[in-house]
Amino acid sequence: MRALVIHAAKDLRIEERPVEAPARGQVEVAIEAGGICGSDLHYYNHGGFGTVRLCEPMILGHEVAGVVAALGEGVSDLAVGDRVAVSPSRPCNACDYCLKGQQNHCLNMRFYGSAMPMPHIQGAFRERLIAKAWQCHKVAESVSIGEAAMAEPFAVTLHAVNRAGSLTGKRVLVTGCGPIGALAIIAARAHGAREIVATDVMDTVLNKALEVGADRVINVAENPGKLSAYAERKGYFDVQFEASGNERAVRAGLEVLRPRSTLVQLGLGGDVSIPQNVVVAKEIEMKGTFRFHEEFALAIDLINQGRVDLRPLLTETYPLDDAVRAFEVAGDRNRSMKVQIAF
Amino acid sequence: MRALVIHAAKDLRIEERPVEAPARGQVEVAIEAGGICGSDLHYYNHGGFGTVRLCEPMILGHEVAGVVAALGEGVSDLAVGDRVAVSPSRPCNACDYCLKGQQNHCLNMRFYGSAMPMPHIQGAFRERLIAKAWQCHKVAESVSIGEAAMAEPFAVTLHAVNRAGSLTGKRVLVTGCGPIGALAIIAARAHGAREIVATDVMDTVLNKALEVGADRVINVAENPGKLSAYAERKGYFDVQFEASGNERAVRAGLEVLRPRSTLVQLGLGGDVSIPQNVVVAKEIEMKGTFRFHEEFALAIDLINQGRVDLRPLLTETYPLDDAVRAFEVAGDRNRSMKVQIAF
Amino acid sequence: MRALVIHAAKDLRIEERPVEAPARGQVEVAIEAGGICGSDLHYYNHGGFGTVRLCEPMILGHEVAGVVAALGEGVSDLAVGDRVAVSPSRPCNACDYCLKGQQNHCLNMRFYGSAMPMPHIQGAFRERLIAKAWQCHKVAESVSIGEAAMAEPFAVTLHAVNRAGSLTGKRVLVTGCGPIGALAIIAARAHGAREIVATDVMDTVLNKALEVGADRVINVAENPGKLSAYAERKGYFDVQFEASGNERAVRAGLEVLRPRSTLVQLGLGGDVSIPQNVVVAKEIEMKGTFRFHEEFALAIDLINQGRVDLRPLLTETYPLDDAVRAFEVAGDRNRSMKVQIAF
Amino acid sequence: MRALVIHAAKDLRIEERPVEAPARGQVEVAIEAGGICGSDLHYYNHGGFGTVRLCEPMILGHEVAGVVAALGEGVSDLAVGDRVAVSPSRPCNACDYCLKGQQNHCLNMRFYGSAMPMPHIQGAFRERLIAKAWQCHKVAESVSIGEAAMAEPFAVTLHAVNRAGSLTGKRVLVTGCGPIGALAIIAARAHGAREIVATDVMDTVLNKALEVGADRVINVAENPGKLSAYAERKGYFDVQFEASGNERAVRAGLEVLRPRSTLVQLGLGGDVSIPQNVVVAKEIEMKGTFRFHEEFALAIDLINQGRVDLRPLLTETYPLDDAVRAFEVAGDRNRSMKVQIAF
Repeated sequence: MRALVIHAAKDLRIEERPVEAPARGQVEVAIEAGGICGSDLHYYNHGGFGTVRLCEPMILGHEVAGVVAALGEGVSDLAVGDRVAVSPSRPCNACDYCLKGQQNHCLNMRFYGSAMPMPHIQGAFRERLIAKAWQCHKVAESVSIGEAAMAEPFAVTLHAVNRAGSLTGKRVLVTGCGPIGALAIIAARAHGAREIVATDVMDTVLNKALEVGADRVINVAENPGKLSAYAERKGYFDVQFEASGNERAVRAGLEVLRPRSTLVQLGLGGDVSIPQNVVVAKEIEMKGTFRFHEEFALAIDLINQGRVDLRPLLTETYPLDDAVRAFEVAGDRNRSMKVQIAF
Repeated sequence: MRALVIHAAKDLRIEERPVEAPARGQVEVAIEAGGICGSDLHYYNHGGFGTVRLCEPMILGHEVAGVVAALGEGVSDLAVGDRVAVSPSRPCNACDYCLKGQQNHCLNMRFYGSAMPMPHIQGAFRERLIAKAWQCHKVAESVSIGEAAMAEPFAVTLHAVNRAGSLTGKRVLVTGCGPIGALAIIAARAHGAREIVATDVMDTVLNKALEVGADRVINVAENPGKLSAYAERKGYFDVQFEASGNERAVRAGLEVLRPRSTLVQLGLGGDVSIPQNVVVAKEIEMKGTFRFHEEFALAIDLINQGRVDLRPLLTETYPLDDAVRAFEVAGDRNRSMKVQIAF
Repeated sequence: MRALVIHAAKDLRIEERPVEAPARGQVEVAIEAGGICGSDLHYYNHGGFGTVRLCEPMILGHEVAGVVAALGEGVSDLAVGDRVAVSPSRPCNACDYCLKGQQNHCLNMRFYGSAMPMPHIQGAFRERLIAKAWQCHKVAESVSIGEAAMAEPFAVTLHAVNRAGSLTGKRVLVTGCGPIGALAIIAARAHGAREIVATDVMDTVLNKALEVGADRVINVAENPGKLSAYAERKGYFDVQFEASGNERAVRAGLEVLRPRSTLVQLGLGGDVSIPQNVVVAKEIEMKGTFRFHEEFALAIDLINQGRVDLRPLLTETYPLDDAVRAFEVAGDRNRSMKVQIAF
Repeated sequence: MRALVIHAAKDLRIEERPVEAPARGQVEVAIEAGGICGSDLHYYNHGGFGTVRLCEPMILGHEVAGVVAALGEGVSDLAVGDRVAVSPSRPCNACDYCLKGQQNHCLNMRFYGSAMPMPHIQGAFRERLIAKAWQCHKVAESVSIGEAAMAEPFAVTLHAVNRAGSLTGKRVLVTGCGPIGALAIIAARAHGAREIVATDVMDTVLNKALEVGADRVINVAENPGKLSAYAERKGYFDVQFEASGNERAVRAGLEVLRPRSTLVQLGLGGDVSIPQNVVVAKEIEMKGTFRFHEEFALAIDLINQGRVDLRPLLTETYPLDDAVRAFEVAGDRNRSMKVQIAF
């Protein structure tokens, strides 16, 4: 079995790994599609992010879907041949946070392709993956395996929507229209956002944002005034999904958010400087959102039912042998939205 | 009638002003006590704060209590001689925010002693004040006029408690133990906080914090490690009331707050740099709190019923003639907590 | 000008009324469509409901749309010829509840066609209506006047959705699929309900429920077991919209709702007997929902944008001269969903 | 070892049971005090309640405290001689509800002294109890073992307070002032209720309610008008804790609750008839509250810190040999509040 292993920044290798047999409660999945995520790119380009650094070779990847190839003992709700999306989130279900229903804060989380703990948690960019049956969610026949592999980043944005609270009647600002921002537009639209304005600094991604449901887009590099016009009467937007990780986007959002509104921060940026007096005087709520838990099953449900269409965001697919090229393209926002690898 | 008028930084004058008669629905209050607040000090020391600058002479002050001296027509629930605390908050009750019950965000707010709008809103540090009857809240006989004048800053902290949500079972961190931080301790204690740890860089105020209800205090200038010990297992505190406006206090708090906890920011600071990745990974909620609305009546209620005791925080009272000295003392955290002027 | 006046149960008359001129801030609307609501039917069939009884002749009707025919002074955002839906809700915006943003609980509410206060509030089933400009919401050209007149009952269900909180990932039960239940299905679907099961005792309305978005319908008269199958493992549904006012529907819902779920009660029924021990042991939240406030504008927005399609629910339209027949048909659930009168 | 075993209504026996040794993670507790609860009385007087019926002999009791007599392997945070209150709640921490943090809805709950499942869950009225170490909460030296045994019913009311949400500024009505109602008064007071009015039909318990913190009490058997006076302007109370299980108390509460207020239902009554139109028109939230989870530890914390004083509610203690008499007295509201048995 081949796997895609990162050794250091810019040192990505295709390596052979042994195939294991599924134990009780497990299944073997023949991975077919794997999406490249921002964190994969951080490992590839910089060997990590923040304090998280690669200390040993690690298989990358956590956005995957494939076909069940073999069943361990005691697995009754899956069959060989089932097409499944695999959740990369494996909480312990026993620590204090898990027993509060906050599994995304599990003290012993084993999330695929993460260099946070040592030894690192090996990822899912591999031809064969052994997973727990409950990680595998069946994909409807009408859904392509590529769209199914987008369940994971979509779940991230569904969790962000959950963090935002009800969107009924809400005016929404999305800053940053990469894959996560664009998926946040889809998630917000599907949950009733009254109006969605999206910003970025690149027209290509803004056009995609319009295609997947934004009512209006603003290129803030070219027309910052179009956004700040919303600052009148103390602001306009009820909710901001901040998906750029950029300080200017946070600050521009605070300017046009209404009193008592909510800024939901996606993505793991570094230090940002915020105007405390604006947060105070408008009583804005800034809240982080991190990964997901129950939202993975929801993501698959919405995709299976055709209630959302993620396909416009899947811009390119490369064979495993071209993985390095896939990573290079994925890192170029001008050329790509979501890039996947076919295994 | 004499009033305390700020002309520019360090230019504070006692001036004569004409006495007006109360119109329909108004009363005349003989002010007896006025507390000096942080914003008064900003005008006195710096001529303003942030973008808010003095552009014309302005009577300072918004923490006042006194005795009803005359009634306008149609006032039936007050009598001459009643001792009252006067709310400085005068929302229009007609704008979009008021009609949402968000009067503290009123587009036409006339808050005493504020240089935000032009002309400035004249304040309440004067011998006679004409106020609407509904601004005046009766003070019980058992309550001193000085304690009554602390209803206003106490209301600010009660609003912060409202913003924090239920404190039942919650572990609370208070950073910054000046008057607002100390009142936040009292407010949190009165509403069920399970445990309160308070921090500051000065032992004098920390001792006061202990006196009014903190379970434990930490001098973070001397022992920062005592606080960061709470960072284990992703953090300890459920709620932080940040009353220092200091970036280090915000960052230290984020380190020891638990996943899904809340940081309530009091006070109008400038730019602060925050670690976005911590806010995201722990899904922390940072929310501003600004002034108060219904909480003024609640503050008086709690004081009148003796359910809280604010008196330990009233450290000095100066006659009007010594107003400049009062402002100098109020600005020295080492010497004072709350300083008031007797009119 | 002709108006539709109820004098007593089954005594509905078309009467002449004088046309007034619009005062400052008002407009004259030529009413074109008026939907018959459950409360109109109660007045028609029984002379009132509960303790609310007709004590004087009253023009019925509160679901109306038409064309602006004349403008009073100072109206600048409407023009003669504009097609508008008219909100029947006229809160005072000055009482305690209005100043909390709870206008639907206004102490001085003047809601069209209501016999609650004396004198009664005259309704909107008339050829010409004088309304405040802010009551009038412009209707897009693509929207029929009949659909526009459904904004009012749709707003009722949007308020119910607001009362329910976020529907992200929620499984929803709708009991009773008359016009309000069917609109609740549309409102819930538009705001992200994960799954909607609807019940009624009549196949005709259940088919309509399927047409407007229910995933599954159950005729509980014929197959009560199909619903109670959801009771396993303490229940299945997260939210119930109860639109039948029927005790059996409430009790059946409590059986299949999960612990910590929410039952939103629409419609003004009489006494119902509930199993207190079930509400307690499953910690169910039963909450009433009453009319709407901001949701009227939202209803028009969603209709104008084509994000919802209410047309399948408009089953018949009768000319004013056939008003009595319209009321008879509207009262027969087997023959009609929403019946309107054309003026 | 002796235990108190119920065989059928009015057939309560003291029986010998073998003493077991504590296994790994368990401790042996010498029970010293056990409080008689409403459900114990139901088994004693009626052989059960609702559909829950005694089908085999069952040791009663779940409100207990005692002294650690022996430690199983691996128990490090308790020592022989420690005085502890023992939580009767033993969720599985593995079912869907537990993994949502809703342990009180555990599908496999083993709550002491419950005839819900078959075989019944044996209770804690016994001289020696084997419990998990995590069930045992250390009691401060200053606290009597009798007060410690009241942690359990106090936790029930703390959970009710949690269900009610923040009590800051809230006006609270408590209907029914038996042990649970009286403890709800203490819990609400400790968490900031602005005003507490309590009702009952018996002056003896109302006097106790005043003693533990009610601001005002009303004997609704003698003066129902005193309560209904609060119905003006659509109602007065923000929160009702309904601890009587009596239909009249529910209905009287709905009359005097404000729009958007909350009725928290404690206790497992039977069917009650409620006026649906009031719940709807005032948009009242009725929510059940059931047992507790994290609140047991909180109860002990508040008792240990002396932040609440439950002792006035402990009216009588009987030796085990007089258990039948203890049950008879406990069942007579006129003679007793909380009755305990000394083991």
